[in-house]
Amino acid sequence: MTTDIDVRVCEVGLRDGIQGIDQFFPTDKKKAWIRSEAAAGVPEIEVCSFVPPSVSGQFVDCEEVIEDALTLEGLEVSALVPNLRGAQRGFATGVHKLSFVLSISESHNQANVRCSREDSLEQFRQIAELRNSTPENKKVTLGVGLATALGCTIEGQIDPGEIVRIAERVLELGADELSVSDTVGYANPTQVRDVYRLLRRHLGDDVLLSAHFHDTRGLGLANVHAALEEGVRQFDASLAGLGGCPFAPGASGNIVMDDLVFMLEAMGLNTGVDIDALVAVREIVAAGLPEEPLLGAIAKAGVPKGFIPAAA
Amino acid sequence: MTTDIDVRVCEVGLRDGIQGIDQFFPTDKKKAWIRSEAAAGVPEIEVCSFVPPSVSGQFVDCEEVIEDALTLEGLEVSALVPNLRGAQRGFATGVHKLSFVLSISESHNQANVRCSREDSLEQFRQIAELRNSTPENKKVTLGVGLATALGCTIEGQIDPGEIVRIAERVLELGADELSVSDTVGYANPTQVRDVYRLLRRHLGDDVLLSAHFHDTRGLGLANVHAALEEGVRQFDASLAGLGGCPFAPGASGNIVMDDLVFMLEAMGLNTGVDIDALVAVREIVAAGLPEEPLLGAIAKAGVPKGFIPAAA
Repeated sequence: MTTDIDVRVCEVGLRDGIQGIDQFFPTDKKKAWIRSEAAAGVPEIEVCSFVPPSVSGQFVDCEEVIEDALTLEGLEVSALVPNLRGAQRGFATGVHKLSFVLSISESHNQANVRCSREDSLEQFRQIAELRNSTPENKKVTLGVGLATALGCTIEGQIDPGEIVRIAERVLELGADELSVSDTVGYANPTQVRDVYRLLRRHLGDDVLLSAHFHDTRGLGLANVHAALEEGVRQFDASLAGLGGCPFAPGASGNIVMDDLVFMLEAMGLNTGVDIDALVAVREIVAAGLPEEPLLGAIAKAGVPKGFIPAAA
Repeated sequence: MTTDIDVRVCEVGLRDGIQGIDQFFPTDKKKAWIRSEAAAGVPEIEVCSFVPPSVSGQFVDCEEVIEDALTLEGLEVSALVPNLRGAQRGFATGVHKLSFVLSISESHNQANVRCSREDSLEQFRQIAELRNSTPENKKVTLGVGLATALGCTIEGQIDPGEIVRIAERVLELGADELSVSDTVGYANPTQVRDVYRLLRRHLGDDVLLSAHFHDTRGLGLANVHAALEEGVRQFDASLAGLGGCPFAPGASGNIVMDDLVFMLEAMGLNTGVDIDALVAVREIVAAGLPEEPLLGAIAKAGVPKGFIPAAA
C-alpha cells in the first residue's frame, strides 16, 4: 500500500500528541492505535519518546510499544530521543529510526532539554558515533528535528541563517534527514517557502527535508501547501490534532492527520492511506483519552460527494 | 486606513454567517458589529440579504442596517440579492454594491433560489438593466457570486467549463466583479489554482475575481494561499467563522476573518485591518448570538511574540 506514494505522512500523535497530557494513554490502546493506523496505510509512526519517566510518565512503556510495532509489516517505526541516554535505549530496541531533537532557539533548547545547543550538538555527535559502532545500529535512520525553526515563544522570530547553520552541523555529524519544525505554530506560508528555499540553496537537493507543523494559529494546512510548492514530500501530523499547547488553552496542536490526508488526496497526491479507515482510528484515541478534545474537520463533515482518492 | 492595501477582505458574517441561524441577531447589535469592524479597518461588509422574510427572518431589518452602515466613512456597504425583487429593494437603499448569487450547479440553483440557472441569468439581465436606468443606480457596483463553483452537495464535482460559461454570460450582461464560491467547502488548493488559471485565460486579466471559501473540510486557508498564488486579492470571510453548514453539525462555516487577516498580515500583505481591534469585535457577536460557537485560532492563541503587521 505504501509503494508509489507521492507524499509520505508520519503519525506523531503517540509522541508529540500525548507528551503534554497528564492522563496515561494505556499501553494496549497505544498498540491498537498503531496497528489500526498502520493498517489504514500510514507508512511511518513515531511511537514514543525516550525521555526519563521524571519528564513524562506517558512513555514508561516505550520498549513494549516498539516491540509490538516492529511486528507490523511495512511500517517504519520511529522514536524521539532528546539525548544520548535516550538513544542508547532506542538502539537497544531495534527501532527503524531515531529522531533527535534540538531547538534553533538557544533559550528554547535550554527550556526543552536543559542544555545549550552546543551541548545538544555534542550529544548528537555521540549518538551518530553510536549508530556507526555496530552493524545493527547502522541500519537505524537518524533524523533531526529542528525545533522552533519558524518561531519561538521565548525569542520570537528566528534568524533563518541559524537554521542553515545548525542544519549544516547536524548533517556533517551524520544526520540522514531533517525536519523543519514549527513547534509553537508561529509560521506563515511565505516564511515556509522562504525557509525551504534557503535550506535547499545551502544544503543541496539530496538532503531529505520534512515538515513538522502545528496548527496553533490556524495556518497549519496553508503552511503544508506552501511546503508542497517547495517540493517537500514528507509531513508529520497527529490524528485528531492531539497535542494542544499547554500555554494556549483550547488552542490546536499538531496539524490534524485526517485533514492532511484528505487535502493531499484531494489534490491528487497519493499518500497510500485509506481516509475512511484513518478516521475510524479516532475511536481508539477517544477511548484512550476520554477527556481530550478531538479536532479535525473531515471527521465531522465527511469527504465531498463524488470524492476520488488519488490512487483510484 | 484602507489605502495602499495589498489584499481586500470582505466581512460576510452578517449575511452568510447568520442566514442559517434561527436566533434573530438584534438590529442594534448588527449595527454595533458593523461599526466596530469598520473601525478595525475592514474595508467592505456585506450587511444583509434581500430575501423575503418567509425565507429567513434574519434580514427583516435590511433597510435600517444599511442606512446606519452608509454613515460610516470609507466603508463599502454591500448586500446580497437573490432576484430582481431583492435588487429593487437594494437599489432603493443607496447601498454601494449588490451581489447577485447564482449557482454553477443547476440542482443547487433550483434548491437555493427555486429557479433554473437560465431564469437566474434572466433575472440578472433585468437587474443590470435596472442598474443602468438611473444615475443613482449607475453608482452601484454589481457583483455576482458563482455559488457551488468548486463543488456541490447535490451534483458532486463541477465541470470547470461550466464556471467559464456562466462567468462569461454574467460579464456580458454587466457584472463588475465575480466571486468564485466554494459554497459547501469542497475545494482543494490544486483545484483552486486550476480554476482561477482557467478563468484568467478565458476572461482576461481585467476582470476582478474574488474568492468566497468555506472551511467545512479544514482547507479554507490553504485554499486562500492557493488563490493568492494565482493573484487573487479579494476574499470573503466571516468573523469567528460563523456560518456552519446545517447538514454537517459542528462543521465550520465561512473561513474565519480573524485568522485570514492574521495569515495575510503575517505574510506581509497589508489588509488595512488592526488584528487586535478585529478580535475584540467577537465580543459583540458573542453577545448577539450567545448560543453560537465562535471559531478561530488566533483569538485563542494570540499573535506570535514579536509579530509585526504588514503595514508596520
